[in-house]
Amino acid sequence: MSKEKRAVISLITDFGLRDSFVGVMKGVILKVNPSATIVDISHEVANHDLQEAAFILYSSYKYFPQDTIHLVVVDPGVGTARRPILVVGDKYRFIAPDNGVLSYIYREEPLKEVVAITSERYFLPSISSTFHGRDIFAPVAGWLSTGIDPLKFGEPVQDYVRLPLPDLVQSDDSTLKGAIIHIDKFGNLITNIDRATFERMLKSGSGRKFVLRVGGEEVVKLKETYAQGKKGELFLLFNSFGLLEITSYMRSAAGLLKLQRGDEVLIKFFP
Amino acid sequence: MSKEKRAVISLITDFGLRDSFVGVMKGVILKVNPSATIVDISHEVANHDLQEAAFILYSSYKYFPQDTIHLVVVDPGVGTARRPILVVGDKYRFIAPDNGVLSYIYREEPLKEVVAITSERYFLPSISSTFHGRDIFAPVAGWLSTGIDPLKFGEPVQDYVRLPLPDLVQSDDSTLKGAIIHIDKFGNLITNIDRATFERMLKSGSGRKFVLRVGGEEVVKLKETYAQGKKGELFLLFNSFGLLEITSYMRSAAGLLKLQRGDEVLIKFFP
Amino acid sequence: MSKEKRAVISLITDFGLRDSFVGVMKGVILKVNPSATIVDISHEVANHDLQEAAFILYSSYKYFPQDTIHLVVVDPGVGTARRPILVVGDKYRFIAPDNGVLSYIYREEPLKEVVAITSERYFLPSISSTFHGRDIFAPVAGWLSTGIDPLKFGEPVQDYVRLPLPDLVQSDDSTLKGAIIHIDKFGNLITNIDRATFERMLKSGSGRKFVLRVGGEEVVKLKETYAQGKKGELFLLFNSFGLLEITSYMRSAAGLLKLQRGDEVLIKFFP
Repeated sequence: MSKEKRAVISLITDFGLRDSFVGVMKGVILKVNPSATIVDISHEVANHDLQEAAFILYSSYKYFPQDTIHLVVVDPGVGTARRPILVVGDKYRFIAPDNGVLSYIYREEPLKEVVAITSERYFLPSISSTFHGRDIFAPVAGWLSTGIDPLKFGEPVQDYVRLPLPDLVQSDDSTLKGAIIHIDKFGNLITNIDRATFERMLKSGSGRKFVLRVGGEEVVKLKETYAQGKKGELFLLFNSFGLLEITSYMRSAAGLLKLQRGDEVLIKFFP
Repeated sequence: MSKEKRAVISLITDFGLRDSFVGVMKGVILKVNPSATIVDISHEVANHDLQEAAFILYSSYKYFPQDTIHLVVVDPGVGTARRPILVVGDKYRFIAPDNGVLSYIYREEPLKEVVAITSERYFLPSISSTFHGRDIFAPVAGWLSTGIDPLKFGEPVQDYVRLPLPDLVQSDDSTLKGAIIHIDKFGNLITNIDRATFERMLKSGSGRKFVLRVGGEEVVKLKETYAQGKKGELFLLFNSFGLLEITSYMRSAAGLLKLQRGDEVLIKFFP
Repeated sequence: MSKEKRAVISLITDFGLRDSFVGVMKGVILKVNPSATIVDISHEVANHDLQEAAFILYSSYKYFPQDTIHLVVVDPGVGTARRPILVVGDKYRFIAPDNGVLSYIYREEPLKEVVAITSERYFLPSISSTFHGRDIFAPVAGWLSTGIDPLKFGEPVQDYVRLPLPDLVQSDDSTLKGAIIHIDKFGNLITNIDRATFERMLKSGSGRKFVLRVGGEEVVKLKETYAQGKKGELFLLFNSFGLLEITSYMRSAAGLLKLQRGDEVLIKFFP
């Protein structure tokens, strides 16, 4: 049984590319909707790392065509009572286990509906307790992509799970405390400090300066592009997501600073 | 020269994703059949590892749409007399070097035809002795996907190569001897012990118990889901392929046990 | 705003597959042209490594369907004055930063046009200074794939950047000096010595022999296929690109020889 409708389905998992997990999910989707265009966002999320998966989705979902279905399967609770959910936003739909992996979406997007998926008619006939990516999430994404009404998949719920996202705290007029929320392939340390908050605090006095403290180091240079830095020199820039990033030209800032995601970043502003 | 027909072609290779090997094969396929949907199953098979490739195919092929062409290129004998073959099963077709990499298919599927591929008209004009994935296998898969009769590619053969698959031996009423046949990205140790055999032996006495011995350790707990285990505790479950798996919640069982594929697994059943 | 036209777009980047960079570029392309077929060639180019990206493109571009757009984003100068360029060859189009990453194309292909891309109407509305893959290159590739005239994207230029490609020097009648230009996933060491040059020099005397010197070792055996070698024995063959390769059956020649890309290879011919 299948039905054709052109649609884009994106995938984020922690399944890696060595085993057949991801290929199997794609086979299942194409069985339901042979006209689906499936786009990998990442399958190299660290095992069971909901924060990383949540950030990867946050950094990418808006760049896809309207009506894209974003499917996220990072699922340490597979087989337990945690629910599969379907989130209907303004322009995009999201399918994931209800474990908080969509938390940035709840913060960023106007939500039309959050549905706990229960309609087994859209699942594979036999459900394992260890691979719901194959047995539930992939076929549900396939069926949703054929144009089925989201409310056919289950009942709306309000009590979906939200992860605590890293705080950005303005403890006083001259102090901003954030955190490293992602380290990319180049070793850039991405913080949760957005340009608007930074510039507001920088301009709240006249001619203010700042120093950023992280891992025992102080960084004071803010540049526009990677290539403006010297190799091995640490500096800052606002990256393509509008977030402050600690970086080094042609070097890994993460390697230079030995920091990890979650580590604190402190900015002191002064005249 | 090309011909259009919508079709799914899956790929399993040991080519990795850093070099251009896989992209080149896709280019060649699309040149022949621009309407093919190409799905990667894995390109991270260990170099020349036929057993791993065979298992990855076994764990995935049934989840694809009917008529999918599964193309497997793990080919240590490239350029030698080993033949390229085309296997026509009930629902799927398979293309691979005749080196045993399709052995699970021979065991599992009713075969209609095994064809030794010889028709050079379906190859690239110039055949290298080191990259038949590009010069033979990809164009043959492309042409097959356009609807050409499998028997146009060569002659049926019976003497195709079978790998010895790991034995599952019931040495007596209370002993089952199997092996680790795959280790996945999460470090789960997948055995060749299927649920039916296990349950038959477990129930053949009344109220029987069991102990599984592997790498000097004993494992006795059988659970339903990963999350039922404590972190770092070893336990068993039947995975989504119906095979017994040695696992640990949020930990790598392979890391805890220092085992490798091929290592023996012994189950003793007792009253 | 989007326009449909079937077209193949290939991708080569150093973005890796863990972050969302590549998925985002695909989302942007599909937003412009939902009918594009996007093919990954490699995203595992070493960070900022123009020579590696250039070789990966060289080894693959000809195997794609006519009119394929090859998009290469390895871009250490992102955000600086380096231009985005569009190269129109005989059968293929190429889009990349003007940093020399297309140098093999300039050497190999008859060029119709090299255009410095300046028409911002084909960019995303807001251009970051750190991710032109998303903001400029992907949407330009998307728009080009819909059939827009290359000259609509900017003005033709002549002063595009060429990388020095590794020299192949025939210092005298009996000496050929080349270099290792790529090391593949299997550890094969690929040189820039082509079959025609090698055979011409080998045959320029009668019954000549040769010895290849690399990293303190001498290699004298030239075979046709990998499987003709013994495991662990070093030998040579002309690979599927027509280039001389130092290899070892089922072993990594790079691991045995501890060599790197760029290292010199010397062949002495003698009677």
